[in-house]
Amino acid sequence: MLSVAEARARILAPLRPTPAEIVALSDAWGRVTAAALTARLTMPPAAVSSMDGYALRAADGQLGAVLQVVGSAPAGHPYAGQAGPGQAVRLFTGSVVPPGADSVIIQEDVRAEADRITLGVAVQPGQHIRPAGLDFSAGDELAPAGIRLGARTIGLAAAGNHAWATVHRRPRIGILATGDEIGLPGDPIGPGGIVSSNAHALAGLVRAGGGEPMLLPIARDSLAALAGAVRHLSGLDMLVTTGGASVGEHDLVRDGLGPDFALGFWRIAMRPGKPLLSGTLGGIPVLGLPGNPVSALVCAVLFLWPALARLSGLPGAALPLTPLPLGTDLPANDHREDYLRAALRPGPDGAELVMPFPRQDSSMMRTLAQADALVMRPPNASAIQAGALVSILRLDAFGL
Amino acid sequence: MLSVAEARARILAPLRPTPAEIVALSDAWGRVTAAALTARLTMPPAAVSSMDGYALRAADGQLGAVLQVVGSAPAGHPYAGQAGPGQAVRLFTGSVVPPGADSVIIQEDVRAEADRITLGVAVQPGQHIRPAGLDFSAGDELAPAGIRLGARTIGLAAAGNHAWATVHRRPRIGILATGDEIGLPGDPIGPGGIVSSNAHALAGLVRAGGGEPMLLPIARDSLAALAGAVRHLSGLDMLVTTGGASVGEHDLVRDGLGPDFALGFWRIAMRPGKPLLSGTLGGIPVLGLPGNPVSALVCAVLFLWPALARLSGLPGAALPLTPLPLGTDLPANDHREDYLRAALRPGPDGAELVMPFPRQDSSMMRTLAQADALVMRPPNASAIQAGALVSILRLDAFGL
Repeated sequence: MLSVAEARARILAPLRPTPAEIVALSDAWGRVTAAALTARLTMPPAAVSSMDGYALRAADGQLGAVLQVVGSAPAGHPYAGQAGPGQAVRLFTGSVVPPGADSVIIQEDVRAEADRITLGVAVQPGQHIRPAGLDFSAGDELAPAGIRLGARTIGLAAAGNHAWATVHRRPRIGILATGDEIGLPGDPIGPGGIVSSNAHALAGLVRAGGGEPMLLPIARDSLAALAGAVRHLSGLDMLVTTGGASVGEHDLVRDGLGPDFALGFWRIAMRPGKPLLSGTLGGIPVLGLPGNPVSALVCAVLFLWPALARLSGLPGAALPLTPLPLGTDLPANDHREDYLRAALRPGPDGAELVMPFPRQDSSMMRTLAQADALVMRPPNASAIQAGALVSILRLDAFGL
Repeated sequence: MLSVAEARARILAPLRPTPAEIVALSDAWGRVTAAALTARLTMPPAAVSSMDGYALRAADGQLGAVLQVVGSAPAGHPYAGQAGPGQAVRLFTGSVVPPGADSVIIQEDVRAEADRITLGVAVQPGQHIRPAGLDFSAGDELAPAGIRLGARTIGLAAAGNHAWATVHRRPRIGILATGDEIGLPGDPIGPGGIVSSNAHALAGLVRAGGGEPMLLPIARDSLAALAGAVRHLSGLDMLVTTGGASVGEHDLVRDGLGPDFALGFWRIAMRPGKPLLSGTLGGIPVLGLPGNPVSALVCAVLFLWPALARLSGLPGAALPLTPLPLGTDLPANDHREDYLRAALRPGPDGAELVMPFPRQDSSMMRTLAQADALVMRPPNASAIQAGALVSILRLDAFGL
């Protein structure tokens, strides 16, 4: 049996980022940059006032000095002249500081009468002035390639004068549920039949990871049905199957993918979710998840999520494991890497504690739905006591 | 000046959840339920095997017993007869346990020859059987109204036989940037002009919060321009303005919204982001954010995010404040609730520590872009030392 880390490395190895496309900046939120965004202008473009007030020469800025207000410069309307000795120019937040002036006094600190102001405080050189380029200068890198664009980087890109962004195409993930017993919600369900839930749940995780899910028609449990389901696949960056990857006589995906399927491996030292299939089919990477819904989602977090990251153009593809203290003791672990469903609850001092569920039944979707996090227990981990740090994965980070 | 909590309460008070619409379950990820999802069937629908193996009567299950295999029941194909005394039925994971049988022995624990199996272990009643309804029964509530549908709840809804979900319409948020100095990326920028970044950044936050942003044309700094910008607004659940809400002569939004605008308030005891405007315009709630990009985004987190939650149909609208230990000392705070930009860094034991930036310049987008979190400091908070817990907001939770 392979370790989780080894399995993940093998799944990721053949994956390449999708090609780049141009999208309007207003559509770029959540997308991954395929090229660095470089400032096309300097921000602020000139020295500007950080307050509403008056520009003046600091040399004129003694307490009680009286200056003549020679003009006004609302933001976006720089004063055409300059601030000479004994002169002041009315400014507002963001106004360009006129030539000659080297300081700003805020309006609350002056007494204004007609075209004169009297300074109520002494002025320091440079005060309330944001120099040109304080935020960034033309040519500065605002965002590197290979990051997911959030609202802040979108704002920076706009401020740097980008109307477009070069981003990786969303990875297209085909999701193939298999089984004679499953049907679609609302469709007729035969005796002993159940409604397929994995494909819809996985589609949510794919969306959360920035991918575009494609729900493929359900494949029945026969070699011919499976072969037919995958015969004319195209345009996918990855094919994810669920079910049929276990070891019984009716576990067909392995064989049904046909002679073109290059098998990677199929058992992993982890719990839940031991059976896993990986390979390529006519150049399309294939990830075969267990049919059990809990195992399928846990395996999707551990393997599909990093695969989505890699396909999306994110360099690291690391899982967002966070250390957090345990609220209870945990026994030693066996040789399988274990992922315990757990709640996060405030402890006595208000800090979050990890509370693994006493019952870890991998068949129950409802208990997974109540979990806040997965606790990762390394293979052969020793027993640990309440207060010890454990590595957790917050489920909401995966759109779960 | 109002407190942050009081301001938020006043902003939220008039907001009502958007009406419900029907969406396909495959489009429902991330949407907020407007009606509870109730199981339409029982899961599993009958007692099913949790392993690949053989169904038998536990009374026949002595070590070394030889049983006749009378049939096979792949998942989705229940055995038509029953398991009589001395008989076994071949089963697979998810197969319905046939009448008469009350236990399952896994295939690794038998020796199979032709139509006979010899038990390699003694069998316990009920073993490896998942009873009908273990996960849920018809009529059980799978998800209440007023929750955001994640991949897990989508899967549960599918398993419960829902092809559709009743969800709140996405709130439509109009975003109106104001100012003579701002332009759109790629458009001509005049002397002293800058590129508008707030509207694009806020649109990202609106998307992250489940809303639908609408970027309105930039309004220039005149009463006529502002009045024109808002004259024929319709179909919005909220109007967000940026800029023009401060106290200078050129702060026009307050007046420009015209006689129909019912002013809520406009100064809040917080840092950054003191000037804030709230009210309604012809029945549309209005939130006026500062023009400074850092203040605008911090205020959006504190006021627009909860407003989106309320409009989306989420009952709580509480901010996801989390306690985390400080990595450095912090001085006492003044009367304004303070939001410090901070990094999260692993401490000596690997647990996350909060490291507030030494420089909290609210004009710099780039330092905001480098922050992982905001540290909330209550008004008049005492000085605290490294190790003390502070309340933080993780910026990635807001699509920032």
